Amino acid sequence: MFVNNKIVSYATLLSFSKNIFLAIGCSEKEAAKAAEVLVSADLRGVDSHGVARLTGYVRLWEAKRINCKPDVRVVHETPSTAVVDGDAGLGLVVAPQAMQVAIDKAKNVGTGWVSVKNSNHYGIAGYHAMMALQHDMIGIAMTNASPLVAPTFSLERLLGTNPIAVAIPAGDQPAFVADFATTTAANGKLEILQRKGDAAPTGWIQDAGGAQSLDPHALKAGGALLPLGGDRDHGSHKGYCLGAIVDIFSAVLSGANYGPWVPPFVSFLPVSADPVGEGIGHFFGAMRIDAFRPASDFKHHMDNWISRFKSAPSIDGSNGVVIPGDPEREMSVQRRETGIPLLKPVFEDLMALGEKLDVPFESN
Amino acid sequence: MFVNNKIVSYATLLSFSKNIFLAIGCSEKEAAKAAEVLVSADLRGVDSHGVARLTGYVRLWEAKRINCKPDVRVVHETPSTAVVDGDAGLGLVVAPQAMQVAIDKAKNVGTGWVSVKNSNHYGIAGYHAMMALQHDMIGIAMTNASPLVAPTFSLERLLGTNPIAVAIPAGDQPAFVADFATTTAANGKLEILQRKGDAAPTGWIQDAGGAQSLDPHALKAGGALLPLGGDRDHGSHKGYCLGAIVDIFSAVLSGANYGPWVPPFVSFLPVSADPVGEGIGHFFGAMRIDAFRPASDFKHHMDNWISRFKSAPSIDGSNGVVIPGDPEREMSVQRRETGIPLLKPVFEDLMALGEKLDVPFESN
Repeated sequence: MFVNNKIVSYATLLSFSKNIFLAIGCSEKEAAKAAEVLVSADLRGVDSHGVARLTGYVRLWEAKRINCKPDVRVVHETPSTAVVDGDAGLGLVVAPQAMQVAIDKAKNVGTGWVSVKNSNHYGIAGYHAMMALQHDMIGIAMTNASPLVAPTFSLERLLGTNPIAVAIPAGDQPAFVADFATTTAANGKLEILQRKGDAAPTGWIQDAGGAQSLDPHALKAGGALLPLGGDRDHGSHKGYCLGAIVDIFSAVLSGANYGPWVPPFVSFLPVSADPVGEGIGHFFGAMRIDAFRPASDFKHHMDNWISRFKSAPSIDGSNGVVIPGDPEREMSVQRRETGIPLLKPVFEDLMALGEKLDVPFESN
Repeated sequence: MFVNNKIVSYATLLSFSKNIFLAIGCSEKEAAKAAEVLVSADLRGVDSHGVARLTGYVRLWEAKRINCKPDVRVVHETPSTAVVDGDAGLGLVVAPQAMQVAIDKAKNVGTGWVSVKNSNHYGIAGYHAMMALQHDMIGIAMTNASPLVAPTFSLERLLGTNPIAVAIPAGDQPAFVADFATTTAANGKLEILQRKGDAAPTGWIQDAGGAQSLDPHALKAGGALLPLGGDRDHGSHKGYCLGAIVDIFSAVLSGANYGPWVPPFVSFLPVSADPVGEGIGHFFGAMRIDAFRPASDFKHHMDNWISRFKSAPSIDGSNGVVIPGDPEREMSVQRRETGIPLLKPVFEDLMALGEKLDVPFESN
């Protein structure tokens, strides 16, 4: 479809992104972390959350909605919980710091749970959840997001695509890493249909009148994304519950904005004049495996779980049961090797950004 | 449809169920708790998980798969976690005890997380999650269940309907209580279609060959329930992720059976000759609200969240956005007042059970 892809190496994208973050005032350490989180999305094939968003972050900074020298701090805590104030920092750096707080608490008392306010878009949820794996912990990451989703029976957009990521260590097998929007389809998938001019499947979107729509542009014409399930008969009330839970854990627990008050990622849309909290909210969890049973026993059974599911008889024409995280890990290995394909408009956008901020794009 | 409903009072069903549990050897206290949990499902309108299952529990006891004098105990713990061994007790009594452990831990260190092995069917998930509400805590309950669900691309049933319940306190508004199977539709909904002779919507079931089926009897002919989403285009991989996470938290963390090894609820199906753990597994969580922010602030914002969502403009012909838990709470109030309608076969089943165990059914 996209013959005009430009292939760029991981190293190039990483150093370019880091230099952009340095150019807008991030410290060396935070620029490096923000770039690592951002480009991990491109590596894993989640292109909608990678460098395609770099210009968006810079625009938020231009709109003075991002503080590049944030004082990220714990403002309330117990042995197993904390609320972190992101000080309007880049979500890309606030989130790993908050997840680290959860991990540290889990080291002490078995689990750690951190709700974050006053943050911004944090890149891909999976990155943060996966931080737990090296500590033999289960990692959980959620965030609320710009209101684009109509709950079941609503004409109005009240929730974001509010993703949930859960990373679970295994032994000889690679880790189980689920990372998904709580809508039938994420906005990035809709954008692909828009570019291709294809119709959307049923259950992805409704039009401004609340009717199911196959038009991938319906969202821009006052429609809404639909919760996982699509409609009531197909369980959309469950997808709505999931999105609501993510919203409440991320924002009502922390004191961030929730529901329709969540500030939009795109800088050209106004933030609410009457906010109910600070910035957007995230929620992180870390559970030490050996707080439940010896890690080696758990990993042995996770390996068994994974191989049993992979070996189930599969539906004709399919490749069989997929273990969550496998496609992204394979994509990651491949793209580290052969480079990351960027759509022409994304590449041109990055070129223009580099020129504007005087950051050279060194294609090596 | 069901003109032969028999209306029975809550008090009658409660005392009959308690006497049945006493008759099979439960202690006074445990019989009372088991009955309360069981009949709470009928009260809330979740008829598939109420007294319609009473005979099923008794059959499991007859098959020596239930221990009516269990020594339910913590076998591993940290300040915020525990593994509970249910000693093959009724899930209806094991679950509230395990949830109480989670609540006690939350009192001490902010949150409590309990994975349970060696248990049985625990009734409705919502009951256990809601135990947290009176303590100003968020409650979470999950369980794995008999393998009836084929993951995306699988011909084989590998997961249960693995429900998730989350109960969140509010202030003036009633609590938010989500309680849903991670399949498009729970088995109970399919049974209703079977009785009515109606076709199932798409996305609920597949036939033995893995094709989408509208036949509500397809499950009995080697088919499977489908994960929330229905098929890959509609996000079934996300429903599969949710069911898998519930399975792993409930059973791989605790040492219960997982995936296709979960012992079936119906006593006429054999349990695995080569189990990977003990009994079925549950997972419970409790998070103290004031471990994050003052409970009064949180409740104020939950009230605002709820009223904002309820007042959103609604799709023509609908009653608008539903707050999770509202329909069940309203049903509960109504049924306490006017009684619980039982289908004729369910009522006759209870009569036969009472006769067999010499427990009178006192209709008052």
